[in-house]
Amino acid sequence: MRCIRCGRNREVYLKSYNAHLCRDCLILCSQNRVRNTIDKFKMCSPKENVLVAVSGGKDSLVLWDILNELGYNTFGIHIDLGIEGYSPLSKKLVVEFAEKRKLPYKVLDIRKVLGLGIEEIVSVLKRPACRICGLIKRYLINLEASRFDCVATGHNLDDEAAALLGNILNWQEGFLSRQYPLLEGKGKLRKKIKPLCLNLEEEIRYYADFRGIEYVKGPCPLSKKATSSFYKEAMNSIEKKMPATKIRFYKEFIKRRYFKREEIDLSPCEVCGFPTTNKICGFCRLKEELNRKIKIAV
Amino acid sequence: MRCIRCGRNREVYLKSYNAHLCRDCLILCSQNRVRNTIDKFKMCSPKENVLVAVSGGKDSLVLWDILNELGYNTFGIHIDLGIEGYSPLSKKLVVEFAEKRKLPYKVLDIRKVLGLGIEEIVSVLKRPACRICGLIKRYLINLEASRFDCVATGHNLDDEAAALLGNILNWQEGFLSRQYPLLEGKGKLRKKIKPLCLNLEEEIRYYADFRGIEYVKGPCPLSKKATSSFYKEAMNSIEKKMPATKIRFYKEFIKRRYFKREEIDLSPCEVCGFPTTNKICGFCRLKEELNRKIKIAV
Repeated sequence: MRCIRCGRNREVYLKSYNAHLCRDCLILCSQNRVRNTIDKFKMCSPKENVLVAVSGGKDSLVLWDILNELGYNTFGIHIDLGIEGYSPLSKKLVVEFAEKRKLPYKVLDIRKVLGLGIEEIVSVLKRPACRICGLIKRYLINLEASRFDCVATGHNLDDEAAALLGNILNWQEGFLSRQYPLLEGKGKLRKKIKPLCLNLEEEIRYYADFRGIEYVKGPCPLSKKATSSFYKEAMNSIEKKMPATKIRFYKEFIKRRYFKREEIDLSPCEVCGFPTTNKICGFCRLKEELNRKIKIAV
Repeated sequence: MRCIRCGRNREVYLKSYNAHLCRDCLILCSQNRVRNTIDKFKMCSPKENVLVAVSGGKDSLVLWDILNELGYNTFGIHIDLGIEGYSPLSKKLVVEFAEKRKLPYKVLDIRKVLGLGIEEIVSVLKRPACRICGLIKRYLINLEASRFDCVATGHNLDDEAAALLGNILNWQEGFLSRQYPLLEGKGKLRKKIKPLCLNLEEEIRYYADFRGIEYVKGPCPLSKKATSSFYKEAMNSIEKKMPATKIRFYKEFIKRRYFKREEIDLSPCEVCGFPTTNKICGFCRLKEELNRKIKIAV
């Protein structure tokens, strides 16, 4: 079988795109897909400064690599969650990736910000790990982003399709209205972009391997019970029987803008001053609860 | 474990409803659910004459049984599809069910209407069996229904949730707008109701067993490759992890009426005179194609 682009021997077959590709063309196709996604949704221009949220997993590192290859001004931010046996490797791979390419980056350690690692925070607060972790990471990244024009995250097509499925099964209108590749900024909040939202996980995995990008394999040890994984499994089982369902499902949703975003009123958090929909933002409330509970425990 | 209604020993546990029930209470609950569904969606009154489409499977026979128990005037219609090893048993069970309860019914044999059984029709037309079969059954039942006030079909919650998932994954707006428990009639077309749309398949299976209703087990032999089964599997895998997802998904969709039904222009078919959106209705076109192809083959 031959590569559909250059006619050389194919190395991979991506059933969902119905594409036989050689190594070089897979890399090119992945990069072109990101370029087209950025253009299509008017995400950012090459002049803008992009803060890339990098976890150390394949998606965020591939995103960083592609944005860099496409000529964007990028700066990586990595949040060290302090998870034993997981976070040190994640950090190491992010740092090595950046150093090798001479890309600027910053590592934020949540133990320095909050005094505890994520596992301890979760065990004190007794709430779902992914929710707490997401809140903390969003806050710290948003805060850091004020020096940049936008924040890019590595959500891929599989993530977006699975999230869309979950939001639709539960008719989460609030989440549905925010599930777009570009979320405009407001006040101190910078715009958020998902340049990988049309790249399948499978393609990204091949890209990482072909470009020799080392990444943390397997999910975060705290996310094992995440409901998103059930939706991913369900989407994968449908995709297997009916290839391209994910792409069609997500693309058509985006195209038709079924759930319009309502204007949200934001005001400064009474504690930290950062924009929030409440009097006190989620992060400051979390911090306060954490301090109170630790004191009680002591 | 005790029955949540009467306190006697429970016989079944319906995880999605989080209900432990004894035999009698399961029967009562199933009937109450249908009564409530009919009331909630203003489907029909006890004075109306209901044509019940009965295939011989559990859903349609349970529907007929419940409507009869609730005091509705019912008349059964069974389409004999002429499938070897399947249709004779289906017909036998429908006839036995009706005779035992002294309920009026009619059997329509598609071999008498079209000269061929469904398997032969499918092999001549070379199109998906379920699509052809659905078209023929809908037409014949609509035609028969002109003497009645409405047509009731046995679609259960699992069917509706799976269809909803399929229609949403493909953003089939036309189907989505028609996916409601009650479809109003228009001209010669009678209204269509789905009184089992909030009863889970699992509950219906128990109901049939507890009431001693004999039904054809297993899917139609021609529907094995039906895409609806993939959606059902996916919904079941999610339901297993997150019970009550199906109920929430379907109920909220219905409640919010996300996809409004557009007024459809119907005019009489130029061949048979029955309402259609085209010049010639789907059934008449199928008949014409069938005749042409058989003549060619001869």
